[in-house]
Amino acid sequence: MGLNRGVSVVGAGMTRFHNRLHADKTGRELFVEAAIEAAGSVDKGFRFRDAGALFVGNFAGDVFEGQGHTAAVMADWLGINPVPAYRIEDACASSGAALNLGVITIASGMADVVLVGGVEKMSRLTTEQVTDALALAADSSYETSVGFTFPSIYAAIASAYFKKHGAAWEQLAAVTIKNHRNGALNPKAQFQSDILTTARKIGERDGRVFKDEMEFLRSDLNPVIASPLRLFDCCPVSDGASAVILAADEVAWSYTDTPVKIAGIGQASDTIALHSRPDFTTLRAAVKASEDAYRMAGATPRDIDVADVHDCFTIAEVIATEDLGFFPKGEGGKAAEEGLTALNGSLPINPDGGLKAKGHPVGATGVAMAYEMFKQVRGQADRHQVQGAEVGLIHNVGAAGASVAVQIYRRG
Amino acid sequence: MGLNRGVSVVGAGMTRFHNRLHADKTGRELFVEAAIEAAGSVDKGFRFRDAGALFVGNFAGDVFEGQGHTAAVMADWLGINPVPAYRIEDACASSGAALNLGVITIASGMADVVLVGGVEKMSRLTTEQVTDALALAADSSYETSVGFTFPSIYAAIASAYFKKHGAAWEQLAAVTIKNHRNGALNPKAQFQSDILTTARKIGERDGRVFKDEMEFLRSDLNPVIASPLRLFDCCPVSDGASAVILAADEVAWSYTDTPVKIAGIGQASDTIALHSRPDFTTLRAAVKASEDAYRMAGATPRDIDVADVHDCFTIAEVIATEDLGFFPKGEGGKAAEEGLTALNGSLPINPDGGLKAKGHPVGATGVAMAYEMFKQVRGQADRHQVQGAEVGLIHNVGAAGASVAVQIYRRG
Repeated sequence: MGLNRGVSVVGAGMTRFHNRLHADKTGRELFVEAAIEAAGSVDKGFRFRDAGALFVGNFAGDVFEGQGHTAAVMADWLGINPVPAYRIEDACASSGAALNLGVITIASGMADVVLVGGVEKMSRLTTEQVTDALALAADSSYETSVGFTFPSIYAAIASAYFKKHGAAWEQLAAVTIKNHRNGALNPKAQFQSDILTTARKIGERDGRVFKDEMEFLRSDLNPVIASPLRLFDCCPVSDGASAVILAADEVAWSYTDTPVKIAGIGQASDTIALHSRPDFTTLRAAVKASEDAYRMAGATPRDIDVADVHDCFTIAEVIATEDLGFFPKGEGGKAAEEGLTALNGSLPINPDGGLKAKGHPVGATGVAMAYEMFKQVRGQADRHQVQGAEVGLIHNVGAAGASVAVQIYRRG
Repeated sequence: MGLNRGVSVVGAGMTRFHNRLHADKTGRELFVEAAIEAAGSVDKGFRFRDAGALFVGNFAGDVFEGQGHTAAVMADWLGINPVPAYRIEDACASSGAALNLGVITIASGMADVVLVGGVEKMSRLTTEQVTDALALAADSSYETSVGFTFPSIYAAIASAYFKKHGAAWEQLAAVTIKNHRNGALNPKAQFQSDILTTARKIGERDGRVFKDEMEFLRSDLNPVIASPLRLFDCCPVSDGASAVILAADEVAWSYTDTPVKIAGIGQASDTIALHSRPDFTTLRAAVKASEDAYRMAGATPRDIDVADVHDCFTIAEVIATEDLGFFPKGEGGKAAEEGLTALNGSLPINPDGGLKAKGHPVGATGVAMAYEMFKQVRGQADRHQVQGAEVGLIHNVGAAGASVAVQIYRRG
């Protein structure tokens, strides 16, 4: 099966992701901020009224903010009623799924232009409450009911990976160091400081000096959260929003001379509970969704110049780079350690800092990845630009891979 | 804009809707029950693996059951991973919106067959907690924060309607009486007892005898909830699930010789808060969504033989029958009083009992309407069959009309 019509990205915007900066803003205000930036980014101009549908990825606004019915709220706040407005919830893959449905809607003939966004306002709750809220995406009957929340779920995945491949935590630390280094170059990132700088700042407080990143990451200042995962293996709690404007290929040129073609899409599901899976070291839905996207794009992993993958925990990035076919099974961690995934490596991963450093307002993450690829493929990513990037991929995961959305972008 | 491919319904199922019957079942169990009935209803056989995508309408499983990520859960429970699975949340129009996206997905070329369902398991909470949870669909900043929850929102709508049209509560009571009469004929309905029978049962408790329905409905046994709305003007709290199987027209015939054609679809939004609207006596999104659906179907309101409309409160049914063009503005209440909307009237409305008597597990309601029209248009609605029905319409409302989904069905 394929799409009856081609679709491109013609504009993109996002708020900075942050845990304190947006304390006085509601989710709807953040969403409008991102959407206005997206509209302003369209070279030949865009009016919100051009959108024939609105898709909003949001995981748990009802729990985080006491506000459900998110898409209708956003349509209202943008002043674009009576636009058809759909809230999509696929856990942390909510706006990746929304992106896929935006593409599908244009392909169906029901709209030429669609606005797709994501939003999450998480910081009103304590970190403990956020962990509980996020656990609504795991299996309530068999996992969360016994305290198996995401740090421990991904810790189990990391343990399985270490055992199977003889790997060790140092590979994960390499991901941390790389992503914070990239985040330091990204003005939209929550953490804009590399680990060495962070180590100096934190060390100063009690007069400690670290000779390098690893000494800091091995120290008690990077405490174990769920063994083997430490604090700096986990993405932060974030507020933020993101938006992209999709257009049918034949109208995209009326918005910009440099549209970014969505060459392939994929969406897949897997069991909600980990106990139903034969192997924790791969997310089957990521494999399937990427296979579908590669096939539609007529591409292979070797064609990808840059990718944003879902590094909610460092181990997730390692496994993603294997599931997507970038590295053989068991080699993803080594690839990170050897610098292959660095900004100047052979296949840069998460040039924007990833969820790890850029932040992870969960419903906003998928579309924020699309924002990054829109910039990368057009050569507009400034200090974190991957040189010569023409083909980009995004990989957005819900829960521990029960939902995965993938898209492949190509210079228009 | 129109659909690039035609779509039909080839199967439908639903659980009984009830507030106590399903106490020991989770939402996922209810969903599977409905889906299995839908699969079993396909004349020439259906395997779940045939579905190229799954859409699940669910309003607030995270709040009601501590379970979000609903679509992935349902895909897992049906055993159809890695099917693309999307949860759609548009408040009480969640599964109506899911239906529209199911149609759109087939039209896009991404799937030939799609499973669309809805589910809500509400009865674990007290009625007060449910009212609060439902209010997550209203405006948290301006409405729910000051106690303006749905009974009071629809009470304001009823008051405005009475004032504008010189109408009175007796017109609403006529809707109650009709819908309970219909519900008494529907084995899937929560309340299967007409108002007279109900009055006898309730009256017996303290030796009271009511001479007719109106005497009971005017009594203190039908207390005011939010003036002018009384208890029997409000739909109940319900658990339940629903599912339909959609297929591209060209493959529908391989599933059944009597598919039901989806002739038109519409989806629209309106302001989330009532304070932004010039007129409370019409839901603009219902007018717009139905206009779009009529246009696509090449139909007018006079072509409709039977309709399921969103009677979360009796006033909502009255206004719906006007917004959909069945009766002139201000005449919907009279039409109900005069019996025009009765099962044997000129335009039967809610032959299944409506939300009022059938029940309203909110995320399941839109698809349950599609279930009813699938039966009606095929002449399989048994005791609540509308004679000669060939064209049916569904009207599914989120909140006080901030989201509305409409579909028109025609005998294939």
